[in-house]
Amino acid sequence: MPTTDNSYPKPAVSELTPPDRTLMGPGPSDTNPRVLRAMSTPLVGHLDPSFVEIMDEVQELLRYTFQTDNEWTIPVSGTGSAAMEAAIGNLVEPGDTMLVPTNGYFGGRMASMARRAGGTVVEVDATWGEPLDPTAVDDALAEYDPDIFGFVHAETSTGVLQPNVSELTAAAHEHDTLVIADTVTSIGGVELRVDEWDIDVAYAGPQKCLSCPPGASPLTLSDQGMDKVLARDEEPRSWYLDLSLLEGYWGEKRAYHHTAPITNVYALREALRLVAEEGIENRWERHERLAGALKAGVEGMGLEMNASEDYWLPSLNAVRVPNGIDDGAVCEALLEQYDLEIAGGLGDLSGEIFRIGCMGHSARPENVIYVVTALGDVLESMGADVDPGSGVTATRRALEKTE
Amino acid sequence: MPTTDNSYPKPAVSELTPPDRTLMGPGPSDTNPRVLRAMSTPLVGHLDPSFVEIMDEVQELLRYTFQTDNEWTIPVSGTGSAAMEAAIGNLVEPGDTMLVPTNGYFGGRMASMARRAGGTVVEVDATWGEPLDPTAVDDALAEYDPDIFGFVHAETSTGVLQPNVSELTAAAHEHDTLVIADTVTSIGGVELRVDEWDIDVAYAGPQKCLSCPPGASPLTLSDQGMDKVLARDEEPRSWYLDLSLLEGYWGEKRAYHHTAPITNVYALREALRLVAEEGIENRWERHERLAGALKAGVEGMGLEMNASEDYWLPSLNAVRVPNGIDDGAVCEALLEQYDLEIAGGLGDLSGEIFRIGCMGHSARPENVIYVVTALGDVLESMGADVDPGSGVTATRRALEKTE
Repeated sequence: MPTTDNSYPKPAVSELTPPDRTLMGPGPSDTNPRVLRAMSTPLVGHLDPSFVEIMDEVQELLRYTFQTDNEWTIPVSGTGSAAMEAAIGNLVEPGDTMLVPTNGYFGGRMASMARRAGGTVVEVDATWGEPLDPTAVDDALAEYDPDIFGFVHAETSTGVLQPNVSELTAAAHEHDTLVIADTVTSIGGVELRVDEWDIDVAYAGPQKCLSCPPGASPLTLSDQGMDKVLARDEEPRSWYLDLSLLEGYWGEKRAYHHTAPITNVYALREALRLVAEEGIENRWERHERLAGALKAGVEGMGLEMNASEDYWLPSLNAVRVPNGIDDGAVCEALLEQYDLEIAGGLGDLSGEIFRIGCMGHSARPENVIYVVTALGDVLESMGADVDPGSGVTATRRALEKTE
Repeated sequence: MPTTDNSYPKPAVSELTPPDRTLMGPGPSDTNPRVLRAMSTPLVGHLDPSFVEIMDEVQELLRYTFQTDNEWTIPVSGTGSAAMEAAIGNLVEPGDTMLVPTNGYFGGRMASMARRAGGTVVEVDATWGEPLDPTAVDDALAEYDPDIFGFVHAETSTGVLQPNVSELTAAAHEHDTLVIADTVTSIGGVELRVDEWDIDVAYAGPQKCLSCPPGASPLTLSDQGMDKVLARDEEPRSWYLDLSLLEGYWGEKRAYHHTAPITNVYALREALRLVAEEGIENRWERHERLAGALKAGVEGMGLEMNASEDYWLPSLNAVRVPNGIDDGAVCEALLEQYDLEIAGGLGDLSGEIFRIGCMGHSARPENVIYVVTALGDVLESMGADVDPGSGVTATRRALEKTE
């Protein structure tokens, strides 16, 4: 046993008492108390027969939420970016070419992961804040003949929803290109139909429209997608995210690979139960309705949405920062005076937009009224040309109309 | 909005009601209720100023628990294997050579990760169930001149504690070789002094002697270790685990990289507070005392430990399976009849040992008495040549003696 004195002083850290925030940023969103309660459930082992049952249930619930029959539907043991890297790192082999979009922050992350996987990256050009044009995608497919095409269904950095998904996948499949969709900010919040839209691989995050604390992240692969993974010449570069090994744990064998994040799986199960109870289509409709009231409010007070109505993303509302206003100061004031989180822009849109989430358990009338009221008041106090009263009235009317 | 019928039936999944297990296997261990309560705390955002404070506190508590001043001390966003891959995947560059041990399951995992990182793997031979011999390590260092040497401080697959850590690190440093230590099953349970023992990089798991649900895993790097990471010619092959990027989030900038698993960080903070409250050396002493009573019990009933007394690992007790007994049937009976988890052997020791953990919140008299009693009764009922009464008596005496 220890023979020397302990020279490391004990840190004096007090009880955990974080502030009580209302989360209306790009995620995490507010968590339903039922999900928090699930997280306080004592653990069973990751190979316990009762946990194997829970795994089956989570997989079944994930299939429903993705609207897919894909056998290979699992939660990845990490946050959304881990599911993203599991998708790209397993699909892309050294020598493969991946086509990625340039219309937002997360296309750039796709590119970085594809390069690290040993792939060559080519791009389909599109402006930040605009969706992909199917013709441009078609041209890029013809020009580069990529093995993989990745696109972002719901761009959290720009508030843009990609329409015409079926057109994009059809074009890709004509070129024998597999399609990976980033559905981090769409799953459980806006229409997403993995099978009907012929998406080969989709990954997502739990802390957006599923309102589940981050730590276990949805991933689904079609048989074609998984065939490519299992036929690789070279092992994937990550052991932790190697889907051929994870298959041993999440597939029929239930063999040890790594210790699953048991509590996060409990939480995801409860969050997905809430999705099934509400019904996925009702849930999409609720997001559109509540975010519609939010949008009516910000427009009603005189602000402008960044994305056009045609590709508005209800779960992430990108609102133009009024002239002369410092977005960072607004976010700070909302946090300090209202315990309310919204975010500023990222990358090309840094300083130009506010990003206001309307996700999962946060997509409720009380939250929407609160964010519209608080934003109006803070902007007015900073001298912006806004009419907070009209904003709140527009939100109230929109909520009444749809009740 | 949706125009087609929803053809995916809603899964009927009922309330989460896992069995109430006593966890005495190789991890997870039983969780302290305070940690479970921390996990049910509503979330703040991962860039919230209050979360930045929590990050600071967790880093400070991790340094205390690792007994290090290392600035680069963080929780990795995943389970223990993610922290392992963060260590190996960032330290090992293509062209590097890594020396790994062959004396247990986790040396093999190290090898796989090093190869995937582009490294060449060489081995220092040692029998499963034996510690590394410093002379053999010295010889291997001289023969291969590796860039990195990895060893397992506490082998969960064999119940062996590596003694002479300072000798191993001194030998490695004479060859300008950096040392990575697997401390998954030692952190918070058996003596571990990262700085005093001159370990360059150590990774750990939260669900063993820290008794924290898996999902955020301790990692620490010395300046020399981090210098190698930051001087890489080529990016690490994982974006998610790239420490030069994670440095932007956990370092001074606190810039967005990925969404941290907020709830798991809350839990780790509470688990580490419990370590600091108890005092790290008191905690090591408690594990030795309680596991000593467990060992006295299994030996008292007539069973044999797999590891010799000199390198007994208190947190993971490897006990020989008596002749003619099916280890799987024993584990199943304990789970079904006693709601008690222990595990069988892995790899070379499959079928030959039971693995009985004595970790963190599970290292309590009630758990130790329960596992000795239940194991004795089940073995006797299966016709093994054991004396359960003597086992329980030996455990009781050992507990009395040390009270």
